[in-house]
Order: sequence, then structure tokens, then C-alpha cells
Amino acid sequence: MEENHYSDDVYGRARVKNTPELDAYYQELEKLGAGALWTVANDIEPWEPKSNSVPMLWKYDDLRELVLKSSELVTPEQAGRRVVYLVNDKRKDVSAAVGWLYTGIQVTRPGEFTSAHRHRASALRFIMEGNKGYTVVDGNKIMLEVNDFVITPNSAWHEHGVEEDGETCIWQDGLDIPLVNALEANDYAVYDGKQPLINPINHSPITFGGAGLLPADRQWDKPYSPLFKYSWSTVYPTLLEVAKVNEINPFDGILMHYSNPLTGGHVMQTMGAAMQLLPPGFKGKAHKHTGSFVYQCAKGEGYTIINGTRLDWKERDIFCVPSWAWHEHHNLSETEDAFLFNFNDLPVIEGLGLFQGKELEENNGHQMY
Amino acid sequence: MEENHYSDDVYGRARVKNTPELDAYYQELEKLGAGALWTVANDIEPWEPKSNSVPMLWKYDDLRELVLKSSELVTPEQAGRRVVYLVNDKRKDVSAAVGWLYTGIQVTRPGEFTSAHRHRASALRFIMEGNKGYTVVDGNKIMLEVNDFVITPNSAWHEHGVEEDGETCIWQDGLDIPLVNALEANDYAVYDGKQPLINPINHSPITFGGAGLLPADRQWDKPYSPLFKYSWSTVYPTLLEVAKVNEINPFDGILMHYSNPLTGGHVMQTMGAAMQLLPPGFKGKAHKHTGSFVYQCAKGEGYTIINGTRLDWKERDIFCVPSWAWHEHHNLSETEDAFLFNFNDLPVIEGLGLFQGKELEENNGHQMY
Amino acid sequence: MEENHYSDDVYGRARVKNTPELDAYYQELEKLGAGALWTVANDIEPWEPKSNSVPMLWKYDDLRELVLKSSELVTPEQAGRRVVYLVNDKRKDVSAAVGWLYTGIQVTRPGEFTSAHRHRASALRFIMEGNKGYTVVDGNKIMLEVNDFVITPNSAWHEHGVEEDGETCIWQDGLDIPLVNALEANDYAVYDGKQPLINPINHSPITFGGAGLLPADRQWDKPYSPLFKYSWSTVYPTLLEVAKVNEINPFDGILMHYSNPLTGGHVMQTMGAAMQLLPPGFKGKAHKHTGSFVYQCAKGEGYTIINGTRLDWKERDIFCVPSWAWHEHHNLSETEDAFLFNFNDLPVIEGLGLFQGKELEENNGHQMY
Amino acid sequence: MEENHYSDDVYGRARVKNTPELDAYYQELEKLGAGALWTVANDIEPWEPKSNSVPMLWKYDDLRELVLKSSELVTPEQAGRRVVYLVNDKRKDVSAAVGWLYTGIQVTRPGEFTSAHRHRASALRFIMEGNKGYTVVDGNKIMLEVNDFVITPNSAWHEHGVEEDGETCIWQDGLDIPLVNALEANDYAVYDGKQPLINPINHSPITFGGAGLLPADRQWDKPYSPLFKYSWSTVYPTLLEVAKVNEINPFDGILMHYSNPLTGGHVMQTMGAAMQLLPPGFKGKAHKHTGSFVYQCAKGEGYTIINGTRLDWKERDIFCVPSWAWHEHHNLSETEDAFLFNFNDLPVIEGLGLFQGKELEENNGHQMY
Repeated sequence: MEENHYSDDVYGRARVKNTPELDAYYQELEKLGAGALWTVANDIEPWEPKSNSVPMLWKYDDLRELVLKSSELVTPEQAGRRVVYLVNDKRKDVSAAVGWLYTGIQVTRPGEFTSAHRHRASALRFIMEGNKGYTVVDGNKIMLEVNDFVITPNSAWHEHGVEEDGETCIWQDGLDIPLVNALEANDYAVYDGKQPLINPINHSPITFGGAGLLPADRQWDKPYSPLFKYSWSTVYPTLLEVAKVNEINPFDGILMHYSNPLTGGHVMQTMGAAMQLLPPGFKGKAHKHTGSFVYQCAKGEGYTIINGTRLDWKERDIFCVPSWAWHEHHNLSETEDAFLFNFNDLPVIEGLGLFQGKELEENNGHQMY
Repeated sequence: MEENHYSDDVYGRARVKNTPELDAYYQELEKLGAGALWTVANDIEPWEPKSNSVPMLWKYDDLRELVLKSSELVTPEQAGRRVVYLVNDKRKDVSAAVGWLYTGIQVTRPGEFTSAHRHRASALRFIMEGNKGYTVVDGNKIMLEVNDFVITPNSAWHEHGVEEDGETCIWQDGLDIPLVNALEANDYAVYDGKQPLINPINHSPITFGGAGLLPADRQWDKPYSPLFKYSWSTVYPTLLEVAKVNEINPFDGILMHYSNPLTGGHVMQTMGAAMQLLPPGFKGKAHKHTGSFVYQCAKGEGYTIINGTRLDWKERDIFCVPSWAWHEHHNLSETEDAFLFNFNDLPVIEGLGLFQGKELEENNGHQMY
Repeated sequence: MEENHYSDDVYGRARVKNTPELDAYYQELEKLGAGALWTVANDIEPWEPKSNSVPMLWKYDDLRELVLKSSELVTPEQAGRRVVYLVNDKRKDVSAAVGWLYTGIQVTRPGEFTSAHRHRASALRFIMEGNKGYTVVDGNKIMLEVNDFVITPNSAWHEHGVEEDGETCIWQDGLDIPLVNALEANDYAVYDGKQPLINPINHSPITFGGAGLLPADRQWDKPYSPLFKYSWSTVYPTLLEVAKVNEINPFDGILMHYSNPLTGGHVMQTMGAAMQLLPPGFKGKAHKHTGSFVYQCAKGEGYTIINGTRLDWKERDIFCVPSWAWHEHHNLSETEDAFLFNFNDLPVIEGLGLFQGKELEENNGHQMY
Repeated sequence: MEENHYSDDVYGRARVKNTPELDAYYQELEKLGAGALWTVANDIEPWEPKSNSVPMLWKYDDLRELVLKSSELVTPEQAGRRVVYLVNDKRKDVSAAVGWLYTGIQVTRPGEFTSAHRHRASALRFIMEGNKGYTVVDGNKIMLEVNDFVITPNSAWHEHGVEEDGETCIWQDGLDIPLVNALEANDYAVYDGKQPLINPINHSPITFGGAGLLPADRQWDKPYSPLFKYSWSTVYPTLLEVAKVNEINPFDGILMHYSNPLTGGHVMQTMGAAMQLLPPGFKGKAHKHTGSFVYQCAKGEGYTIINGTRLDWKERDIFCVPSWAWHEHHNLSETEDAFLFNFNDLPVIEGLGLFQGKELEENNGHQMY
């Protein structure tokens, strides 16, 4: 049966040849807002998952100046936010970097801040550069440092800025805007003025960021993590230690999900995120699975082979892996760890029962390129 | 603020005017697979949910002959299944009836059966006509009668047929194929031959269809309902009785979800379904909410006003309500109940935190048309 | 190792012999509210679960007259409720029938009713005799018929009665009073007068008793079933049908749990209940497991062998099976089904991770007696 | 009604006076293993929760020498474990410190170790003294330091010891043995020899102790926390920081539960644990609630008033608060924080729906003593 696996010439697939009679029939159907299933069945029922996206790499060396330039060309008042968004060659119609995920690079200069707003779409950020940047999420001000990961979930009021005495901040935004638009559920509202702070600075990461500890009198009924910031200052040493006492996964090295401490699940309902460590000399094996991923190199340098194409990355470079694309990660250094941050739509894919994966068997698990 | 609610000329929205310098900048970005967010922001961040679908009505009187004709034009061997699918004028590219939901009308003649197959997409059926039709789901054969609702979930092997001594059966199929394709996760496999039966006929509805009773030694780890058939013979009297002891919901009459008896949740991970009773003379008020719905009138006659357009339906007619469309249901009879079956994507919309609704306040809750 | 399994003379058990020095030491400890663990360790750490209860049988023929007599001896005003409670010979100190479960037989005459009250303990009833009995649970009046099972959960206001034109009703009460007292959490309150009804009669069983159907606009945040009555009129035919399409379990025949339709779990947080059908000639095999059970024969006649003692029962007889007692059920009729109702503490035992079981291997799975 | 609240002379309570006829009736019932509910009803249905335990304080200054002496009087081979257990004056029959919770103080000298064993009862430890102590849980060796909290859950193989080059270790054991015995579900098994280690030392706390991070390829299906140790080295600074950005709870100061990072729930199914910080000069208000608690002072000094009795404690002292006892905690120092560790049966009380609480209103929330 495996032999027939990709053939549409088997019983159970549509194999109808056109005839004048059928053509007339199809026209009749069309007038009524209908069609014959067998004319589209093989197309809409593929043998395997198919992605509309292509692998892409965005080099920070190319983009950084253009990002900074945006902060000169337009003001926050004009633009809302100064963001260069990264768009997949095959997903321009939905402004997505891959699948249904949006990503962009945002710049904020000292003393600047955006207006507060909220939307049904969820957002996250990964900090790339700067000092004394902050975000305010539902009245909680949180200071941002390089390689920190922060969330601004579904319908939470949020605004961002950099203190007067800080340094220009650049961060990557990740949103599920294309997905929420596709699901016809997005909305948007602007806050009249600045949000009042309801807690001391960094209340959330301090209160919910103690390993294995939760406040007894917490009152949290939101479907997302109460931990809004995952600090590089704790994430980095954790991965170093975990790597010492765990087997290295042949596909992913040491891969750890950012998790909601109240559920052990993903940080938000529609997007997950993870940090992974590729040990020195790591040559990952290839697998493919459903779900779309946007990566940023947080540290080190290496390359990822995606469907046979090698993409070389170093710190701050961004690339994407489409659903069901073969991919393998390699650390180019023999002495230094490499770290890859990613965000993804796994909560959607897993939550709807759509996750599946496959390991490459040929060539000892490595792609030819 | 309400006054500005639909204006993009407020702080927090993109209000950048084109200049030659900006145009040059945009071109530079485009070369790198990038763009300036403010050029698309207002478009991808709408104030309110927006649907790409339009309301549509498919009259069974128009379609029935064409459906029957399909069974003469092509064989199951050629076509897989003889199905006339119903397609939204604005969703032809994804073969969807509304949103990301597919629906079609399938015909099977006595003695015919389809090959067994499975797919990551989930499917459901609502029986319209005929006698001694059956479906086989993961080795469980289930007999079908008019107005029965049955599920063939994600990756379950299934095949359908009509006994030799039965009568031609017509049923409505509902699938999430467009959604699963959009999420780049669909797959398909054909079963080599017919599935062996692992249980007596109707084992599932008999074993899991006892109200408030579950077998003590059940072993069920699937993410969907073990109850594969919801019989009209119990659904109909239940709704009649429920209507007697409950207040009539002003929008929906008596609306009951088909539910998984092991969880109280939707029958499958990606699609839900419901049956509703509109009492004699019922004039529903209008509301709108996220989520896409395909309806079939199971009994009676009436009309639904969707975004100001009146669609008149009677038994077996099919229509759809797009996400965030105002809709209100009316029973045209002053003496008989009307029953509407629907299936929908609520498990997706609710599960991802995207449900919201609004009631029409003007005109005592009724649309002008 | 199996050989040593019940020996305390192995490494890892306490094997300290008394000495004068140790005796002095023990006395010193005792003064401080302390002791040496090894003096009690083998006692408090048994090799296998141990029950403090003994198997008991209460014949309805013996009890019925005494139950009726209670309604002549005292009034509801004096006694609150006229109940003959059944007490295990080894659990008199906690008024339990078995383990931490209380049971009693309550009588109410036409026109009588109890005062409304509530308690942290949960209660359930199984109807034995009479006509036009009712219970009111949180404002919901529910009519009772023979072999109906009803719940009056944790902290729900409840009262019972029989209509003026009814017939004297007798039912079995089951409560977790001993457990909730042991856990030092019980309370009690009397309602000032009669509860006002908030719904039409039988609203709960009608609204939540439709197989696989749930009201779309339900609002239920209680940790127990919204279905308050499980009617014999649906339970009985369901078990008959289930028996036809399922294998008969060698220990339990056809055993079905009453379940919460919103969760698929037990009806209440501390007590579960089940109905089981023993087919004609059924000779159950013996097993033992943790959890305490109170049975009532709902129909037919048979016997249960518990730890080697045979207890013969017929309709309305009540008996108990203690935790970790070998037990096997036999139907004495070769032509009629027998039905056993039981209630138990499985939600506690399972919920706290304390369930385990063992099948009897000797003698083809049957006890000698 | 409040006036009658504690009176049994109200309608709805049993108020039957003895008569010769009733006495005869009671004797008849007794012969059948039965009784009249109204003779015990008011006793088994108390108005408010009642505890069988009394508040107790165990001073470490008194106990330490006796604990050390146990290690001279008996060997691990004889005693299994050298433990001085602490027993409530009113719970000697079940060897409980309070409610259904057992606690003891265990000593292990350098080079000593216990045999590996397991039991259905769950266990936890809080380290009081020593160096290079360790526990092995299901093949995971974990090093112990002062004020660390570790779990050895339901049915996990475990053994303890101190390295040859360590220092005598003393720790507090907490177990639910009385509860699991009462629920008639306990068991015990000894491991033949020492457990083989399946992971590097401290694998569990390193792998699951990263705040907000979980290994992507984890495989954990146990109903308890995969994090076996909660280190004082992270717990202490976390509470200090949390105290700076949170309001001080008037009853509990800063109270944080040890939590299962996969669920946000309690660390085990039957026992929870917490650490709390009482700021300098903290004078807690009194409340009472269901649930039993055993405390150990981890740092500082203060006193707790329980049902009007003041118990003064300092580092290493142990005391208990029974269910539904008024209690308030005071820090005696005006300059130093005080820290109280506790373990409790909250998972049972909450899980079974038995939690309730009450705040003291009189005297500005403080007890007279």
C-alpha cells in the first residue's frame, strides 16, 4: 500500500474523467452555489500535510539599519508603532512570516512610548537590543532586557516604551494576527491615555517566577500565564544546568517550553514559545511535524537545513520553519553553545488534535543539500 | 470614545502619509522580505471581527434532483463519494460553505458503499432521506435514520453504505477540511478493503447513549465523543420536554448542544453541533457572535434574517450564518414547532479564546429588512 | 520475596526488642508528646489495605415493619426525619454502615414533609416503596418513583415529602457523614420554612437527562451533577440493551456508573453510585479492591460471597462490602436478571490516588465458603 | 436565626424524649444492626466543623537530644528508620500529630542509610540539620540541605542516607499514614537491596526547577509533582522579593504554596505544603478554616495563638493547628523576618469540596489570651 501512497489512481480517490454531460451538470450546480465534490476532492484531501509557506531567513545585519531608520521616518503618533514586519514570500496576502504567524522588529527610542491598545490577537516579544525598555500589560509594568521573553495576551491592554535615560530598544514582535483574522475574530481598541499601574514594577515575574512556588492567595481566572516575563537571567543558567543532567535530544538538543506555572501548558492559548540549546558541535537530525515556527538566534551561530536548503544564522537572525517541512539544526561552533528562541502555533495545532510528526530515516537522519 | 470607534484617525492607529522618501524605504524593505507595519496595520487590525463569507441559502427543492443525478453520472469507484458540495460565493478558493467549514449532500443507493478511508479532518453527517443507511466508524457499524446526527472524527477509519434492501439515502456531510488545510495539517489514507466490525451494530449509541450512565469498565482515551450517533428518536422528545420546563431563550428558542458524555464538551475537537427548537410563532431577537454556522431545517418552516437579508427555509433547506453576522430566527407557523440543526466551529473559536457576542439593541432587537 | 511478604522479620521493618533502657527512653518521649516510630511502625504501615468493617446483610423483611413503626412513634417535628440507620458491628462509634459511609431507611407518610436543611455532607437516596414522594434540592422539586436514584449534594438545601394523595414512601438514604465528620469539616443549617421552588417540577432530570444533549445556555459552576434524578424508567431499559451488545464482565456483569453529564465523572465529589445487571445464571468471579460499598438489590435474587461468607439477598435487601474484601456476586435465577444498586466512596479513593485491586486466582476465581 | 444557631431545640433537629416504648424499640433495632437516626443525629450532624485534635507545640530544645539518642539506641537494621514521632494528645489511637497527619523527626548519621521501601501513603521531608544527606526517589538521588523541602510520593520507592563524609542529618517527616489507614488503603513493600539510580544526581530539581520552563520532551503521567525538591536556596530569596512587591496578607503575611509545575496544584494528591514569611513586627489577624496543619519554624521567632492559647516558637520548633481552630501568627522580632514552613491536608479538604473559612470579627480580629 505504501507504494500507492501518493497515487490518486486508487479506489477511494476521485478518478472521474470529464464528459460533455458532466460539464453541463457542473454548470447547473454552479448556478446554485454548489459543485461536485469529486472535482476538488483530491485537491482538498491531500495525502500529507501541505504548507503554503516557504522557508525564509532574515539577516539582522541587513535589517538593523532599516529598523532604526523607521524611527526617524515616522513618529509613534503617526505610526502607532515603528515596526518592520517580516513577510513570507508566499504569505504576503495575510502579512504572515510563516503559516498564520506574524512577526516584526520594533524600535523604540529613549523617552518614546506607544499608545495603549488591545486586540483579540495575542502578542509576544523577544528583546534584541537596548536598555530600560518596558512594557505595560494590564496595568503591570515590566522592565525588559536582552533575550527576555514577554507576553501581551489576548485582549490585555498593553503599551511599550523606553525610559528617558535608557537606550534605543529593538525587539521582535510575534502575533497571531493572521490566524485570528482568518478565524474572523479579531478586534482592536485604543486606550484613552496611559494605563494606570496597578502593581509595583515587575510584580508579575517576581510573584509568579519563583520556581515551584505560587502565592496562596492568587486570584487568576485568565486563560494565559500570570507570568508575563521569562528572564534570560534565569532561562540561560537553567538550560546550561539542564544540559548537564539530561540526554541531548538528537533533533532538538535541549528544548524547553516557556510554560504557564498554573497549568504546565503553553503561555497563551494560541501561541507557544521555547528556548533551545544546541551544544557545541551539535548536528541535529531531521524531522518534520505540523505547526509553524519562527526562530531567532539568541546566542551563537549555526545553520538550519529546511527541506534541503541551508540557512546560516547568527545572533539576532530570524528564520522560519513551515509546517511539515524537514528541518535540522546545526551548531557551527565546536566550543560554544548556540541558543535558538522560537515561537509557534503549537497550542492551536495540539489543541485541535492536528499534531503529527515524522523522523527522517534516510542518510542517517540528515538531509542532502 | 464610541464616536471614534470606527475611525482610523486616532492616536494608536496608523496615519502615515506617503512621501517619496517613504516609498524608497518601502522598496528597500520589500527586497528583504519585509515591510513597514503601518502600511498594513489598520487593515490587519480591524476594529471588529470581519467575515469573508456571505449568508447563503441552498433550497433542497433545487438540489435534490441534482444530488440524485450524481449517483447516475458517476460510480463510487470513480468518485469515491457522490457528493454535491455547497460553496460560499466568497469562499470558492477553499471550497467552504462558510468560514472554514465544508458541507455537501451525499447520495448512496441500496447496495452501494464507499471505500473506507480516514483523514485528519473531522466529519459529521445529518441524515435527510432514506432507509437502512449505515456508517462504519473505527469498526463500529451504526444504522442511520432521518434526522440522526453522527460523527466520524479526526483520523477514524470510516465508510458508508446502504443495505441491499434499503432505500436511497441522502445525508448532509459537514467537515472541517478547509480549516485543517488552512492549518496545514490534513492527511488522507485509504483502507485496503472493508473494515472488520469490532462490535455489534449500534454498540456505541447503545452503550454510551444512556442518559447519565457510563460503563464502569470503559476504556476511552480519544479526544472525541464515544457516542457516535445522536438519534432523532431521543433528541426530538427531549427537546419537546425541555421546552415545557425552561424559559425560551429570546435569541435561540430551545438550543441544545450535542455533547460528549465523558466531558460535557463538544462532540469533536474542531466542530460542534446543536439542535434547536423554535416554538410556534417564535420571533427570535438578533445577536451576532464569532464562529461560523451551517444550518439545516430538520422540521417545520421559517426564516432567518442575516445582516438584513431574509432567507426563507423549510425542511431540508440548508443555510449559513457567517462569523459576526447579525442573525435572528423566526418560526413561520403559529401551531407547529420548527427545528434547526446546525454544525459549527465553536470548539475552535471557544478553545482559542476567540468567542465574543453582541446583542442588537435597536428596534427592540429586530433587524430591518 | 513473596514468601516474606507478610513477615515483619525482614530488613526494612521494625524489629526492636524491649530493654529497660528503651523503656525509660519511651517514657521520656511520652512526656513530650512523642514516641519512637519503631514501636508502632509495623502497625501503622500494614503490608496490605486493612478494613475496620465487617460484611453485613440487612434483610428488608426484618426491617420494614420497624421502619414503618418509626413513623408512628415519632413525628417529623420531633425527629427531623424518621430513619432507621444501619450500622456496621465494627463501626458503631462513627455510625457507619461500612467504612465511612452512612446508610439508613427513611419513611414518610402522605402529607408529611421534613424541614429544609443543608450540610457539608453529601446525600443520596434510592427509592424502595411508595408513590408521589418528592425531594426538593436547591429549589428544584423532583418526583420520586421506585428504584429512582437521586442526589442532594454538599451544601444544597433539601427537604423531602410525600403528597397528600400519595402512598407512604420508603427510601434508602446514603450519606458521607462519617467521612466528613472524620475530616472535621461537617456543618448543618436549618432553613427557615419551606424552600421556594425556582423551577418547574422535574426541571433538572428533564433538562439534563437527554442523552448526549446539554442546554447551550446552561450556567452551572457546581462541583456536582446538574442531573439530580436518574430514573429507573430509563436506567432499566438502558442496562437491558447494553447487556445485549457488550461482553459480560466476569466480576460485575454489566456495571454502569451514574455519571455527571457535564464531566463524565462521579455524581458528587465524595460518593459515587452504580447500577449493575447480573444476567440469568451469572456466577461472578471474586476480586477485591479498595473502596467501601453499600448495595441494595433493586430486582431479582442472588447472593454475594464476601471474604468467604455467603450473604443471600433479594429485592430491597441491603448489604455492604468493605474495602479490600474479596467479593463475588451470583444471580440465583436461571431466567431473570438481577439488579444491584450500590453507592460507594470511589470518588475519594480514586481522587486521592488510593485505588488498587486484585483478582482471585485460586479455584478458578471463586471463593470457598 | 443566628440566635438559635447552636440550639438543638429547633425544628429540623432531633428532639425526641425517651419513653419505655421507644427504649424497647431501640433494643429491637439494635438486634438487627440498626438504630434510630434521631438518637444520634444531633451528634453526627454538628452545627460547625469539630476537630478531635488539640493545639500542640513541640520544642526542639527538648527533643533534639532524644532524637540523637535514638540513633545510639537502635540501628537502622533493627528499626527501619530512627524516628521520634510527635503525637497529638487526642490522636494517640491513630499516631497522628493533628487530624490525620503524621509527623516525626528522623536522624541519620554519616554513612547510614535506610532500606528502600514504598507505601501507598505519601511522605515529605523538611530538612533541619546536617550536611550531605540525600534521598532517592524512584531512582532519583537528591541532595538535601537545611530548609529544603522534598517529596516522596504515593507508591514511589524511596530510601534516605547521609554520605560517609557528611554530618549527622535531622529532618522532619510528614506523612498521611493516618489518613490512608483510615481510608483502608495503605500498603507497604520493601525493596530487595538498593535502588539503581536512573538519572544523574539532582536531575529532578534541575530539570523541573527552572521557573516557567519545562522540558519539551518530558514524559510524565504521575499524579504528583515531577519536582521532588524545593530548595531553600531559591525559596528564601523568592519570598523576600515577593514581599517587596505584594501586599502583606493580614492573616498569613506572604504565604506561598509549593506547587506542581505541571499543574499549578499541590505537590501531591493528599498533602500540600507551604512556606510563609512574617515580616518584622507582623501581628496576624485570626481566622479559622477546615484542614489540618503542621508547622515548623524555619527561621526567626514568634508565637501563634490557637483557640486562645499562645504557643511561642523559634527556629526548628514544631506545632500544629487543628481544623476549624482560630489561629493567628505573630513575629516577635521588629527587625527580622520569621519563616514558617507547613504541610497540610488541603488537597483532600479542597478536592472533596470541604474547605470553608471564617475571619474573626471581634477585637479587631485578634484573640484574647
